[in-house]
Amino acid sequence: MKILITAGGTSEKIDQVRSITNHSTGQLGKKIAETLVADSTVTIDYVTTNSAVKPTSQDNIRFHLIESTQDLFETLERLLTSDSYDAIIHSMAVSDFTPAFSLSEEQLAQSIDQTPLTPEHLSSWFRDHEINPNKAEKISSDTEHLLIALKKTPKIISYLRKWQPEATIIGFKLLVDVSKTELLAVAKKSIMKNQVDYILANDLTQIDGTNHHGYLLGADGTIKEAQSKEEIAKLLASVIIEPVSFNQ
Amino acid sequence: MKILITAGGTSEKIDQVRSITNHSTGQLGKKIAETLVADSTVTIDYVTTNSAVKPTSQDNIRFHLIESTQDLFETLERLLTSDSYDAIIHSMAVSDFTPAFSLSEEQLAQSIDQTPLTPEHLSSWFRDHEINPNKAEKISSDTEHLLIALKKTPKIISYLRKWQPEATIIGFKLLVDVSKTELLAVAKKSIMKNQVDYILANDLTQIDGTNHHGYLLGADGTIKEAQSKEEIAKLLASVIIEPVSFNQ
Repeated sequence: MKILITAGGTSEKIDQVRSITNHSTGQLGKKIAETLVADSTVTIDYVTTNSAVKPTSQDNIRFHLIESTQDLFETLERLLTSDSYDAIIHSMAVSDFTPAFSLSEEQLAQSIDQTPLTPEHLSSWFRDHEINPNKAEKISSDTEHLLIALKKTPKIISYLRKWQPEATIIGFKLLVDVSKTELLAVAKKSIMKNQVDYILANDLTQIDGTNHHGYLLGADGTIKEAQSKEEIAKLLASVIIEPVSFNQ
Repeated sequence: MKILITAGGTSEKIDQVRSITNHSTGQLGKKIAETLVADSTVTIDYVTTNSAVKPTSQDNIRFHLIESTQDLFETLERLLTSDSYDAIIHSMAVSDFTPAFSLSEEQLAQSIDQTPLTPEHLSSWFRDHEINPNKAEKISSDTEHLLIALKKTPKIISYLRKWQPEATIIGFKLLVDVSKTELLAVAKKSIMKNQVDYILANDLTQIDGTNHHGYLLGADGTIKEAQSKEEIAKLLASVIIEPVSFNQ
């Protein structure tokens, strides 16, 4: 049984010394991987970042390190279009945006002095200023305010079904301090939009060390609840690996 | 002999799940601390971040974890105004800016539709939008572009001499792909402006694993050169601890 797991959080470069980072320790991914490889028929492709904690290295876990959302996209495209997977667990916290350009207060003043910034040409203003962050100079600290413009990254979860039509796909949805109703509604929407089999829906205010409250929603309408990273890992294992072999 | 070391890189919260992070592994700080505590008369207050690599824990190293520039400021103020230090090695990569607010493309369009953005009222525009990042909602991904406005953080290095008039203070200056002349000029300016005794000046393009080229400039005009983290650590030790006892 071949499983792909993404875990940790992506980082998007602002310049050569700064990034925007999505927080994610990787603890949950580690627990999920360690739970799954307890079944000796399982092999895992584990896609994560340099700074995330990782499952104990084993022969049946292969690591792939990425940094940005674009890296993640390319790595997943390569893996998922060259082999067939039984399941995909996409728990990585992916940046929705990546830096497009930055302007100091003085540069912004100069820019809007020459061409007033109006609602009508805002989209082209964003596009016209775009630069390659790998070529961005280190931002000077010689200004009181700085503006960083970001553009949307590709929505990774929306590609998974296209790349793996047959796999059991489990996505994750993290919200902050919302009602159970809202959390479940957003998760359900994601299942339909991205054609995944399950979404593990959780709320940052209900995550604290090993306590980790979450709901596993199925495309079939089922809802299962977990209270810890370990329970989440077991829940995922139970829907991926045959319940009998897993619960023995 | 009492020494304070800062190492690693600060992180500034954008919202509850994202931060702007200054890259710094903490490897150099670790090497410096381990070199200095080899002298049994040395005790170190080591100020760093959760994610930085740390010197091997020992009785004579006390750790203080911080996250943001504001945390760092408060921790250093507390330590440096309550006790006397022989030396301060400020190697941490400190964020020059911290998020003030963010606007989606649509929010920006609405804002400038109501009140055109002109060079004259740009400063007040930045100030009027400011919010507390701890209260910032998770940014919605439902927009093509996002603007993050940042404001300047306090310049930590400029406070050190005020807090410790007698200590040997060593600051760091990291630039990216500049000439030796420019690097040394910027470092010299920092020595005078911040009234420190030394600046370790280095260039990101000349740092690669253990290879780490740097110049140690003294307020007295001396320039010493190092080619590795180990050589930098020894150079710093030689100017802090009596050369005789160190080189024995």
